[in-house]
Amino acid sequence: MQTYLECIPCFVRQAYDALRQVTDDEELMHRALRRVLEASSEFEMNLSPPEMARTIHRIIREETGATDPYATIKAESTAVALRLAESARPVINGADDPFKMALRFSIAGNIMDFALTSKWDRMNLSTFLDDTRLHILDNDAVEQLRTAVKNARSILFLGDNAGETVFDRLLIEQMPQAKVVYAVKGAPIINDATMADAVAAGLDEMAELIDNGSDAPGTLLPLCSPDFKNRFFETELIIAKGQANYETLSESDRPIFFLTQVKCPVIGRDLGKPVGSWVVQYHAGGTP
Amino acid sequence: MQTYLECIPCFVRQAYDALRQVTDDEELMHRALRRVLEASSEFEMNLSPPEMARTIHRIIREETGATDPYATIKAESTAVALRLAESARPVINGADDPFKMALRFSIAGNIMDFALTSKWDRMNLSTFLDDTRLHILDNDAVEQLRTAVKNARSILFLGDNAGETVFDRLLIEQMPQAKVVYAVKGAPIINDATMADAVAAGLDEMAELIDNGSDAPGTLLPLCSPDFKNRFFETELIIAKGQANYETLSESDRPIFFLTQVKCPVIGRDLGKPVGSWVVQYHAGGTP
Repeated sequence: MQTYLECIPCFVRQAYDALRQVTDDEELMHRALRRVLEASSEFEMNLSPPEMARTIHRIIREETGATDPYATIKAESTAVALRLAESARPVINGADDPFKMALRFSIAGNIMDFALTSKWDRMNLSTFLDDTRLHILDNDAVEQLRTAVKNARSILFLGDNAGETVFDRLLIEQMPQAKVVYAVKGAPIINDATMADAVAAGLDEMAELIDNGSDAPGTLLPLCSPDFKNRFFETELIIAKGQANYETLSESDRPIFFLTQVKCPVIGRDLGKPVGSWVVQYHAGGTP
Repeated sequence: MQTYLECIPCFVRQAYDALRQVTDDEELMHRALRRVLEASSEFEMNLSPPEMARTIHRIIREETGATDPYATIKAESTAVALRLAESARPVINGADDPFKMALRFSIAGNIMDFALTSKWDRMNLSTFLDDTRLHILDNDAVEQLRTAVKNARSILFLGDNAGETVFDRLLIEQMPQAKVVYAVKGAPIINDATMADAVAAGLDEMAELIDNGSDAPGTLLPLCSPDFKNRFFETELIIAKGQANYETLSESDRPIFFLTQVKCPVIGRDLGKPVGSWVVQYHAGGTP
């Protein structure tokens, strides 16, 4: 997906919000914001928005001198998610359709993304469970995913944020786990899960864990490691979580199921769905 | 008032919203936005936010080639305000305290400002009238203004937006009009009232009209004409409408009553009032 002009004010707002999360030093913030403004002015709109997010967060890391400015936030997210998952598991096990209920929790977990709003917080448990149970899903797409998961010999699951990983685990528990490979980021970027975050979430007990070798949000293939690219092109089915994976892979020639919440109007327009929607969408790619 | 880092994302958002109002040309928008980003990165934070707004709207005028890109919007605002004023006048005349009611309408008129939200629209009349009648005002400040207006030999009324002028007229009708001078902008800037807009609102029938010689929002004195500066320093009392006048004059050494709605958290913090408040605030300046 390309970048739209509407994304530009959002980049600057995200950079400001992200800086506020990691520093109180106004001078440092100003220096970083100035670099973000310069970089935004030079940004090529045919690139996808996560390319700009990568630049912004490189600037933040360089200016703060922190290699992982969101480490604490990620650890908290994982801790909150682990507590929520304790309540989620009996709901899934008691459901008429555990796979579909687990899918719901995996998408619900996508709320653990502060790149956009920096406002998600320790949510009220009963609200969270109700919202997860009741949100509208595209049933045809759910059935399509169920069949694809059953038939595929290999599944590459592209993770998104720390904490969200815990809910992805609930979904993977409803799949033939032996054929699932779960991929995280190669280096810290915003609150995206890295290997350490995924291990903290217990993902290593469920699936083979790999990293993509990149420090960009989503999956910018040219920046990924050769190993990851091999997996990406050899796997039979890809499941991609979150908006950034949609933004970076919406034109891929590989077959992908996108699972995400729609949190921004630009992506909503691209997907043809309103903000707030939960998306299960199959992208056939060029490979039948 | 200085500029805060929080203002920077807002500048870029305002530039985007303003461009969307005046053009559909994506290339032109991108070119203008790029210039706004560069200018924002070089902006000196000790200047007040309207200095940046002036730069942004100069860029928009240069890129669009339009000397007054908001002419149509201003004309529409004035037309809407004239219709609303027909309903407001009997409310004022029938009120126990016509001065205070007219003051309410003058502050209510400050909603005609799309620099911040670009969302004000032909509002529901009864909602507007109810809101105007019921909004909380600082009664002590209202009495202070009433006394100051009565005692001052000369009053300089600094206008704000086109359309809002119509409501200021309702307030001036409740003052000794002979001593009131109403000042507008010297050249088009956003939807601020210029001489033509004030005449369209009928202000010339009520008060002496002057312009400040500047194309900045608010009142940036170093950019104003010598004539205006003389008036500003010689008048006994200044009444200043809108946020931009507060931003540019909050440290003035002249006695000023600020009348505005609080539409942004940064100005709210500076004034010590929450967003949504209506402000009647006396600033004593350095002149007793």
